[in-house]
Amino acid sequence: MRFFSDNAAAVCPEVMAALTEANHVDTAYDGDALSKRLDDAFSDLFETRCRAIWVATGTAANSLALAALCPPHGAIVCHRDAHIQNDECGAPEFYTHGAKLLLADGEGAKLTPETIRALLAGVRDDVHQVQPAALSITNATEYGLVYTPDEVKALGDLCREKELGFHVDGARFANAVARLDCRPADLTWRAGVDALSFGFVKNGGMSAEALIFFDTALADATLYRKKRAGHLLSKGRFLAAQILAMLEDGVWLRNARAANDAAARIGAAAGGDRLVLPVEANEVFLRVTPEEAAALRDQGFDFYDWGPGEARLVASWDQRPEDVSALAAAIAAL
Amino acid sequence: MRFFSDNAAAVCPEVMAALTEANHVDTAYDGDALSKRLDDAFSDLFETRCRAIWVATGTAANSLALAALCPPHGAIVCHRDAHIQNDECGAPEFYTHGAKLLLADGEGAKLTPETIRALLAGVRDDVHQVQPAALSITNATEYGLVYTPDEVKALGDLCREKELGFHVDGARFANAVARLDCRPADLTWRAGVDALSFGFVKNGGMSAEALIFFDTALADATLYRKKRAGHLLSKGRFLAAQILAMLEDGVWLRNARAANDAAARIGAAAGGDRLVLPVEANEVFLRVTPEEAAALRDQGFDFYDWGPGEARLVASWDQRPEDVSALAAAIAAL
Amino acid sequence: MRFFSDNAAAVCPEVMAALTEANHVDTAYDGDALSKRLDDAFSDLFETRCRAIWVATGTAANSLALAALCPPHGAIVCHRDAHIQNDECGAPEFYTHGAKLLLADGEGAKLTPETIRALLAGVRDDVHQVQPAALSITNATEYGLVYTPDEVKALGDLCREKELGFHVDGARFANAVARLDCRPADLTWRAGVDALSFGFVKNGGMSAEALIFFDTALADATLYRKKRAGHLLSKGRFLAAQILAMLEDGVWLRNARAANDAAARIGAAAGGDRLVLPVEANEVFLRVTPEEAAALRDQGFDFYDWGPGEARLVASWDQRPEDVSALAAAIAAL
Amino acid sequence: MRFFSDNAAAVCPEVMAALTEANHVDTAYDGDALSKRLDDAFSDLFETRCRAIWVATGTAANSLALAALCPPHGAIVCHRDAHIQNDECGAPEFYTHGAKLLLADGEGAKLTPETIRALLAGVRDDVHQVQPAALSITNATEYGLVYTPDEVKALGDLCREKELGFHVDGARFANAVARLDCRPADLTWRAGVDALSFGFVKNGGMSAEALIFFDTALADATLYRKKRAGHLLSKGRFLAAQILAMLEDGVWLRNARAANDAAARIGAAAGGDRLVLPVEANEVFLRVTPEEAAALRDQGFDFYDWGPGEARLVASWDQRPEDVSALAAAIAAL
Repeated sequence: MRFFSDNAAAVCPEVMAALTEANHVDTAYDGDALSKRLDDAFSDLFETRCRAIWVATGTAANSLALAALCPPHGAIVCHRDAHIQNDECGAPEFYTHGAKLLLADGEGAKLTPETIRALLAGVRDDVHQVQPAALSITNATEYGLVYTPDEVKALGDLCREKELGFHVDGARFANAVARLDCRPADLTWRAGVDALSFGFVKNGGMSAEALIFFDTALADATLYRKKRAGHLLSKGRFLAAQILAMLEDGVWLRNARAANDAAARIGAAAGGDRLVLPVEANEVFLRVTPEEAAALRDQGFDFYDWGPGEARLVASWDQRPEDVSALAAAIAAL
Repeated sequence: MRFFSDNAAAVCPEVMAALTEANHVDTAYDGDALSKRLDDAFSDLFETRCRAIWVATGTAANSLALAALCPPHGAIVCHRDAHIQNDECGAPEFYTHGAKLLLADGEGAKLTPETIRALLAGVRDDVHQVQPAALSITNATEYGLVYTPDEVKALGDLCREKELGFHVDGARFANAVARLDCRPADLTWRAGVDALSFGFVKNGGMSAEALIFFDTALADATLYRKKRAGHLLSKGRFLAAQILAMLEDGVWLRNARAANDAAARIGAAAGGDRLVLPVEANEVFLRVTPEEAAALRDQGFDFYDWGPGEARLVASWDQRPEDVSALAAAIAAL
Repeated sequence: MRFFSDNAAAVCPEVMAALTEANHVDTAYDGDALSKRLDDAFSDLFETRCRAIWVATGTAANSLALAALCPPHGAIVCHRDAHIQNDECGAPEFYTHGAKLLLADGEGAKLTPETIRALLAGVRDDVHQVQPAALSITNATEYGLVYTPDEVKALGDLCREKELGFHVDGARFANAVARLDCRPADLTWRAGVDALSFGFVKNGGMSAEALIFFDTALADATLYRKKRAGHLLSKGRFLAAQILAMLEDGVWLRNARAANDAAARIGAAAGGDRLVLPVEANEVFLRVTPEEAAALRDQGFDFYDWGPGEARLVASWDQRPEDVSALAAAIAAL
Repeated sequence: MRFFSDNAAAVCPEVMAALTEANHVDTAYDGDALSKRLDDAFSDLFETRCRAIWVATGTAANSLALAALCPPHGAIVCHRDAHIQNDECGAPEFYTHGAKLLLADGEGAKLTPETIRALLAGVRDDVHQVQPAALSITNATEYGLVYTPDEVKALGDLCREKELGFHVDGARFANAVARLDCRPADLTWRAGVDALSFGFVKNGGMSAEALIFFDTALADATLYRKKRAGHLLSKGRFLAAQILAMLEDGVWLRNARAANDAAARIGAAAGGDRLVLPVEANEVFLRVTPEEAAALRDQGFDFYDWGPGEARLVASWDQRPEDVSALAAAIAAL
């Protein structure tokens, strides 16, 4: 009973079927019929003209977005616990050719205009310091919290004021939308977002993420950066196929809801005091003693310790209901 | 009837089956059971202890290999027509942080010790010039020629003498081995090769190539570079699965032989004068007038023009015999 | 009466004389007679065989040292207030090709083994995070504090234990040695330091700093990086001349003592409560109200505000005694 | 009697005097009174509003200019014998973060629209190849030839047509202007040049070159790149002083004329057959047998061999007339 990462989940049947269906001859790279449908598909979803670029990993999507928004002598504002800072082995620095990440604080890996303003106030406007060029947030955050459209818009307004590009790491964007039940547009370009890493792999895909540019002028140069980074797969149709399969009939939302619901059930079983943070997406952070953690593991539940006295449990799209029930019961019984 | 690129081919059934079989929960990234089998599988194949790293593209494999072999202030010797020079949008420069490619000439994109010595002789040994640190050849070459073990060894000896790392871009390594009917070891580490990009995608895979380090000390740092480049896919088991499926029962050789045989039939039909180069792997370069090219296209054959008066035709593992026969007949009838 | 930066000071007469004396034909770049004397001159000073490389700025010296000690996928531990983090516009990131700076805290910009251990403990040993490869401290620190030989050695021991390269930004190394009255060797290689940026410009030079490698194996590749960064001046003899002039007869120590003495007089006049930090080198940090700062400025003293309620005053080698007396009196009279 | 490089020459008296005069307290970096005069001084000289940035080396000037004109995924067209390709240890690749140099041919290191068009025709307009973004020529060339205003304009027109930025490496720009007796504007912005590396060091300076942006929008970001590269010297006033001293009263032209005249006398003595190339600036390339070269060296003349059967002699601003006469006589007597 695995709750340690949605990266470990299986691939959903619609994606597997799409791979089989895409297995015929077609033009290489991104010249195939499926890849060419992506711009339209995402423009429909987001109710605006946007550009969509498939890549194989969220790290590639994030880094390409940041390279489009920040020069080598610039800086990217992000949360101290952001994936781009802690979990990508310096990929943003590699792709941006050495831009600096400026780290802000905030409960549950969430940023606010206030924390960002405070950080920016400490930067001197001279050539001795790299100048902030972009903001990157994660929605849902690395701690399973969700920014609302209003919260994103407040940050978007700040970006316009400070002339910062605005990137959203949406490795779990589907979970955020599912939670908020909002229009994807309201959580992105209508709130001032320029670029979105739209994650599919954690949510039932195999190896395809979408980098969405609402500022479409950024897309063309990104195609060169993508090729140059070795991310233009020669049989790219298999990536486009995965994404299109998940957009079709709202599979992406269905999967995200399943994961969120599982997490909600676990969170409800845990109750207020045991929860480190509210459960808003598909992650649950529990206060547990080492003995309690061991007890859960003895019952077959697999999860990460998350600092002293805390555990992280992540629900996936394919989490079996009986496993969720068992976990909920086990936590309630602690 | 497509003969324009082996990149456009379908995925072979063994790989598709392996994807389905791998579709269960396992550890993320490269911690899964399949990924962990790669070192052993390739060590068996190459009859020596080696390290094997999956990546999604040949460009990534090549660039990671070159970054392991050449510092930013170094240079990489390669052929003027090498894929790393002409078809990767500067990926070697990106991954090596700005190393320079030094371009040598040679018929059919093949290098010899003599052409390399001549090139090296022009480099001053002082800090005003980047110093050669690595040699990269492509086997089979971009023009479908094959280096024999002896030819590779002569280059390997030169590399030792000149203290150059030795990389082989083996996007069509399978085609070379199939042609030579030699042991993979003889074409690589026994001939002095340090790193091999072992291609599977053109040969029936979907999205997995293997970077093989015979100089195993180079592997560890490469894992960081790979992550940093966004190439550590979170569901990496699906890449390992593809590779293992093609190694099993010699699928990689079977596929390559099929492609080579198809090209040989086409080449034989063309005959000596019409051939720009001997057909040694799965590519055929023909001398054709514009009218002849048009005539072939009118009959439904798809291929690339390759400079004035020449055409490139590439046979794939899945080329239908009847298509090959039709093409051979059409060429013979020109 | 300028107390805002030792960078603004004049060039000392010995250096000016050396420039005139060097003004004859000699080999270009660093092949001249003066440049060739540097290794020996510093080896004598440091009582060990070392390599010495002139560069025009401390930023270049620091960055070249860090590039020699840290790979692009590595991290450099430094203080949150370090010059390399705050005042070099990302030069370390540029020269290292995107390494990350890990920021530790400590009073007066000083690091201790404890703060560094705490920082390192937070780094996971896996490919998802850049791994610490080097430590960089500043001696004297950006806040005018001095590390003793014992303090440096404690850090050097930690570096050995953790396999970190050890760099000292010695923009004011002369001030530290003058303060401690110690052997330069005790403050560097005997304490485990691998590379030192030995500053001369703030201390009476015009445009020459020395990068000293105690780990001499690092020097050769650095010469390529230096050229590649555009730092191999064609008339390099004029840089070597400056450095040699300051090493001769202990000019570097004489100048540093003059600056330290001036700062000490100012600090003594200020007294304990007014001092933010002890005065150990040539910088004085005062607690002043806006009115007090204005009063000092009205009397002709030029200095920087340093955050709310604080002022930074820097004494230079050429500070006129009467100006120092006047400032001391003015501060005492506040 | 040294004729091997103008880099080895002495510093002219006006520059030495200016250094002495600048030796007083002033604001650090480029905030001083002298540095602030540069924009105006060069705007007067070039009869248009331009931005002027001091740096310590021609390599830094060239690389900063190229980084302003070419993205990492772009390419720079230059001559196969260009300094930026052969003598800067990959500095353009370092500063541009890995752009590629595309090499064209041409007698005497001169490019023509035709050779460039032929080169550009070979670049496919797709993401698999880096796209040309800039042209860089050297005037006077590395072989002492001079582009006329018309020749530069023809290249400038091509740049506009092909949307290439246009950089001139003017390490010997003074020699070109002195030869042509033209307005500096006619050789630069009026001919379509965007950025000029205006050399002073070879022409009597000590350590200051000027990077001139006629496309003034490029200057601001360059200031960050310059700082980040460690090229913002803290006592920058001494660089500005050198440049201003050489602009004053036409010292730069006087020095260049002296060098050109010396070369012309040598060239005239050599006569047509012995000259590899016409003598248009301050370099002379002679056909000499090894015995003849030895004979010249026996008489005390110092110069470089330049490939088999050729020698390069460079005249400097401070070449003594008697040495020039002696050399001319010695060559005539061969």
